[in-house]
Amino acid sequence: MLADSIFTTPQMELLFSDATELRFMLSFESALAQAQAAVGVIPLEAALIIADVCGQTDWTTEWIKEQTLLAGNPAIPVVNRLKERVGHKSQPTLQYVHQGATSQDVIDTALMCQLKQAFEQFDEDINQLNNLLSGLARAHRQTPMMARTLLQQALPITFGDKVTGWLDGLQRSEQSLSRVMAECLVVQLGGPVGNGASLGQHVSAIRAQVAATLNLGTTTQAWHTQRDRLVDIAATLGILNGLLGKMAQDIILLMQTEVGEVWEGAAAGKGGSSSMPHKRNPVTATFMVAIAHQTPALVATLLSAMIQPHERAAGAWHSEWPVMRKLVKLTAANLYHANDLIQNLEVDTVQMQQNLNRAN
Amino acid sequence: MLADSIFTTPQMELLFSDATELRFMLSFESALAQAQAAVGVIPLEAALIIADVCGQTDWTTEWIKEQTLLAGNPAIPVVNRLKERVGHKSQPTLQYVHQGATSQDVIDTALMCQLKQAFEQFDEDINQLNNLLSGLARAHRQTPMMARTLLQQALPITFGDKVTGWLDGLQRSEQSLSRVMAECLVVQLGGPVGNGASLGQHVSAIRAQVAATLNLGTTTQAWHTQRDRLVDIAATLGILNGLLGKMAQDIILLMQTEVGEVWEGAAAGKGGSSSMPHKRNPVTATFMVAIAHQTPALVATLLSAMIQPHERAAGAWHSEWPVMRKLVKLTAANLYHANDLIQNLEVDTVQMQQNLNRAN
Amino acid sequence: MLADSIFTTPQMELLFSDATELRFMLSFESALAQAQAAVGVIPLEAALIIADVCGQTDWTTEWIKEQTLLAGNPAIPVVNRLKERVGHKSQPTLQYVHQGATSQDVIDTALMCQLKQAFEQFDEDINQLNNLLSGLARAHRQTPMMARTLLQQALPITFGDKVTGWLDGLQRSEQSLSRVMAECLVVQLGGPVGNGASLGQHVSAIRAQVAATLNLGTTTQAWHTQRDRLVDIAATLGILNGLLGKMAQDIILLMQTEVGEVWEGAAAGKGGSSSMPHKRNPVTATFMVAIAHQTPALVATLLSAMIQPHERAAGAWHSEWPVMRKLVKLTAANLYHANDLIQNLEVDTVQMQQNLNRAN
Amino acid sequence: MLADSIFTTPQMELLFSDATELRFMLSFESALAQAQAAVGVIPLEAALIIADVCGQTDWTTEWIKEQTLLAGNPAIPVVNRLKERVGHKSQPTLQYVHQGATSQDVIDTALMCQLKQAFEQFDEDINQLNNLLSGLARAHRQTPMMARTLLQQALPITFGDKVTGWLDGLQRSEQSLSRVMAECLVVQLGGPVGNGASLGQHVSAIRAQVAATLNLGTTTQAWHTQRDRLVDIAATLGILNGLLGKMAQDIILLMQTEVGEVWEGAAAGKGGSSSMPHKRNPVTATFMVAIAHQTPALVATLLSAMIQPHERAAGAWHSEWPVMRKLVKLTAANLYHANDLIQNLEVDTVQMQQNLNRAN
Repeated sequence: MLADSIFTTPQMELLFSDATELRFMLSFESALAQAQAAVGVIPLEAALIIADVCGQTDWTTEWIKEQTLLAGNPAIPVVNRLKERVGHKSQPTLQYVHQGATSQDVIDTALMCQLKQAFEQFDEDINQLNNLLSGLARAHRQTPMMARTLLQQALPITFGDKVTGWLDGLQRSEQSLSRVMAECLVVQLGGPVGNGASLGQHVSAIRAQVAATLNLGTTTQAWHTQRDRLVDIAATLGILNGLLGKMAQDIILLMQTEVGEVWEGAAAGKGGSSSMPHKRNPVTATFMVAIAHQTPALVATLLSAMIQPHERAAGAWHSEWPVMRKLVKLTAANLYHANDLIQNLEVDTVQMQQNLNRAN
Repeated sequence: MLADSIFTTPQMELLFSDATELRFMLSFESALAQAQAAVGVIPLEAALIIADVCGQTDWTTEWIKEQTLLAGNPAIPVVNRLKERVGHKSQPTLQYVHQGATSQDVIDTALMCQLKQAFEQFDEDINQLNNLLSGLARAHRQTPMMARTLLQQALPITFGDKVTGWLDGLQRSEQSLSRVMAECLVVQLGGPVGNGASLGQHVSAIRAQVAATLNLGTTTQAWHTQRDRLVDIAATLGILNGLLGKMAQDIILLMQTEVGEVWEGAAAGKGGSSSMPHKRNPVTATFMVAIAHQTPALVATLLSAMIQPHERAAGAWHSEWPVMRKLVKLTAANLYHANDLIQNLEVDTVQMQQNLNRAN
Repeated sequence: MLADSIFTTPQMELLFSDATELRFMLSFESALAQAQAAVGVIPLEAALIIADVCGQTDWTTEWIKEQTLLAGNPAIPVVNRLKERVGHKSQPTLQYVHQGATSQDVIDTALMCQLKQAFEQFDEDINQLNNLLSGLARAHRQTPMMARTLLQQALPITFGDKVTGWLDGLQRSEQSLSRVMAECLVVQLGGPVGNGASLGQHVSAIRAQVAATLNLGTTTQAWHTQRDRLVDIAATLGILNGLLGKMAQDIILLMQTEVGEVWEGAAAGKGGSSSMPHKRNPVTATFMVAIAHQTPALVATLLSAMIQPHERAAGAWHSEWPVMRKLVKLTAANLYHANDLIQNLEVDTVQMQQNLNRAN
Repeated sequence: MLADSIFTTPQMELLFSDATELRFMLSFESALAQAQAAVGVIPLEAALIIADVCGQTDWTTEWIKEQTLLAGNPAIPVVNRLKERVGHKSQPTLQYVHQGATSQDVIDTALMCQLKQAFEQFDEDINQLNNLLSGLARAHRQTPMMARTLLQQALPITFGDKVTGWLDGLQRSEQSLSRVMAECLVVQLGGPVGNGASLGQHVSAIRAQVAATLNLGTTTQAWHTQRDRLVDIAATLGILNGLLGKMAQDIILLMQTEVGEVWEGAAAGKGGSSSMPHKRNPVTATFMVAIAHQTPALVATLLSAMIQPHERAAGAWHSEWPVMRKLVKLTAANLYHANDLIQNLEVDTVQMQQNLNRAN
């Protein structure tokens, strides 16, 4: 779609590219072998060979993508190819590849690694945004403007009050992101039926070690069909997008011709019309509202997908894959636009005063 | 609807009745007057009169409900009636009724009081449920059964493993409920445009005092159009319902004629068919799935409703009212059914063993 | 909830009351017996006795509601009570009650009867609304005003153009309602497993006759787990609510203090503020937006509920019950508000002209 | 995402590629110029030059995509580039490019052209599917199996009965697709503020001619902010996906180890497990359920997006772009999987009989 770039960022496109996804899946396999070697379940040499193959730079994704349609998920062809490559190096090592693990271990953990990086970006972006908003609130703590309730002029506030309102929610959102990063970004490792039996008596140590290697949290149980953490992540992003959408909507309303109190920063080619050259349209704020309109339904899909039968779902799990990625990309874009919007926001304090005066 | 009782509980019907809602609105007005008297903004005598009128037992709701359609929200007729009643007692006190407050302060705070009571019930119910599940997991930690992935028989686990999976998510959910109770159940008090100006220099003290009286948390800002806490509450309930739905779905699948490993407890008249007397249908688990199907969309509506313009929304706020209540009632019913289901669950360990054997 | 009346109408409360629901369920049982007598499957006398009992005026709903929680659906206690009452009159007739039918036949058909009456009301309301809008468009076909794109003043149109836009969508919606009434409001009759076997060789004739008696369409197949017609109905209502929401949102925006081009009709006590007496808030349009915010998620729930396993669903079917009713009630309220809004709309043509002038 | 191919088809990737989207936008501009020349509004020679430039094969999309972030939508850079290219050929022709049209005219119409091609594919696919299902129903009209209600064995039906149920809904869906193709796939042409004024007195003729050239229907009004047709399209696809999801879910349930009545066709590498070689997992049906889980929320987003203010929305319109495309791609994939699934379905009539016997 020609308008794709509205709804994502280059960083997220890279993070969720086929190549990066494969990279994280191989990192899981490598980390697993290392952890199993550390507790003595597989030979150290085998772990080194597996790690070496996982680190090879000539992996391609085309065959894996094709096979996914037959296999049912991408982990199966990845593991098959990994075994093939390891077998070329050392036939006896083959048995130690992916030992005791299941497709969902690989796929869920790789997703968590991607989410981890995404959240690190979000954390940075929201911190920057909140700093910008703090500055804006301070700068305008005495700038009088009209408050509006039910879109009617109500009583005077300051523009600082309005910005403080935006900031208030976003500061809580920043804390929620931190909480989610600490609690919900965890390794998945339980083996074929989730009880860890295939990983032997050292399963807890192995799981903790894989988690540590991948910079994720560990768990006491596998969560193959207990998806609350994932939805907690999603809901946190949904709320953040709602807050950003509210801020953007306020700015669009303040930019109305008849109100004219704030404006998106001007840039050559920005906000024009293909038919009405005199216009100064909201662009960035429009994108933010367009994103915030899409995120609630994505959260709902993930909530619906919680009903995952028995020890692995036939469909509900798979439905999470595109939806979670879409939600993360939209969030990244929304935060990007938000920083752009606030950084360049023009505040027309004279117009604010005029609108105030008219009420009196 | 004849089937209403599936989707609510008597406690929730009482808690969200017109009378209780009015009671909480009047409690807010009373608490506000007391707090204002405590900081010396209104005379103590006025606060006593207001409290006295708020505590009168002959309030009715019919006129208030009718007026809501004209006024736009129920706080306006409630305050009007309150003023009328106070005026009858003491004309000079009239000016101190609802002083500095706005409709949204009353309505949001009353809702929070209702949510507080609902969460206390949830907390109790989930605690009981988790105790039941702990017991069940312990009792069956050595009961072998077949795990099923993608609805295919996979490898053996124990029934204890399966129950531990349910419990794992629900224990996190129990903690989330606690977090939300501590963080999100807060007073709303900001006055007409949310900046607290109408409440004077003592606004923080007044807000804290009202919160304390009503057993809610306080805030540094009003949150008239920053609805993240409310959606955090909703998402937490959404996740809980998803976990309960997963457990119920598992039980329905295990109750299949061809599987037959667990059964809902028998009761006279339970689970029969109007046309097939031999059947033993899932009833309670069916209700739970029916509830879990409805909750994701309600959370989505509340996420969508976060885009609340300026200092009070024209529509988005109002859309929260029935949706939040519905979500709470469904959650209460789901927890009630869950306790009923687990308390009476029959486990057919022989059939579990037979299904295991068939695989070998 | 004190604000209940915003989200429903008295007619819909009556139509979806316990008593009316029971009435329609009994009408189904009566129609079934009559149809079976007409084709000679049961004695005419039995049909008369059943019809007589179904028509008794002393039915109550309390016991039925209680039993629903045990039985799993309300049809089971209704049929049980019906058999009891028929048995009192004539023991040999008992066997002919509900003969060959299943709970879902009763419940789905009764819902369709309710939907039929609701749609007749909608048809009337939308017709009235479209007439009002036609008149308004004609009256203002030459009233100049500013068009606004991305909430920026763009180029002149007439207010008639704007109203014609609203009408354009609503006329298509009126046609969609007609299509749905003709195609989707059908009887459910298939017996326990939906293949009609229990109803014998005359099943098609019986089904057609029951449909005719109840003023519904007939079908070639039962649709116990093929729910497309129900969702088609829901989507049609969803679209109607979207169109009404758009119109209401436009009016709220035009009512902004800074725009001031149209106003909701004034009425004593309407649109005031509990704290700001000078305000003239949108009330009716606010309610409409609040409704339109809720309906998309309800349609989504019904779409999700289409995945109904085998010959009867355990949960998905039950989830439709409150959701469909809620959607219908909201639609009724939205149409009611819309007629009220348009009938009393005040158009400030002078202000429209002033806003136009300012652009030049 | 490595699993991308589950959720789309190669045809849809091509149809919704940047290049094809640009091609349709240019086709609109060309058709507009031709239509304007036909009614004498612009010189025939200008139309020929514009058509010639629109047909040039060396258009690229990179610059357009970049500019979209500034401009707010892709039509603005497309028109700019078109003007530039036309200007190179003939400076006087420049004024006739995009004359009287607005960005939304281009973008909505190009989307409709894409939807048209997608629907032609859907029509073919569902026709093929329904033929397959008809054949399957005929072949098994006498194959006895157990019906299951609430996932309990109920009474015997035939497998033909079950397939006929699937077919019944899908035949209605096929008709709905036809209806939507005839009614909803229409040109967008209204100019900057939708009233057609910029296109002059011949607007109806021009609109009809553009529609005819592009093989779309025409309209009496522009529908810039009346989005019911688009949502009607979406709801129709949503219902289709629900029906497909139901069929796939039934097959997954019938494939359960303990039921074993039907199987996905075997293929080398299909349905295996990375850890359990003995398994025969549902793959295609799993993908279908995964898709059907995602579509309800997309329809909800489009319903929510109907509240588009005034003459062009700031956000709601833009939110449609990725959502509608996603819905179409998912539908295409679902239909593709469905044909694959049914074409290769293996029916174990012996097992069906055994499951029947066990009940007796």
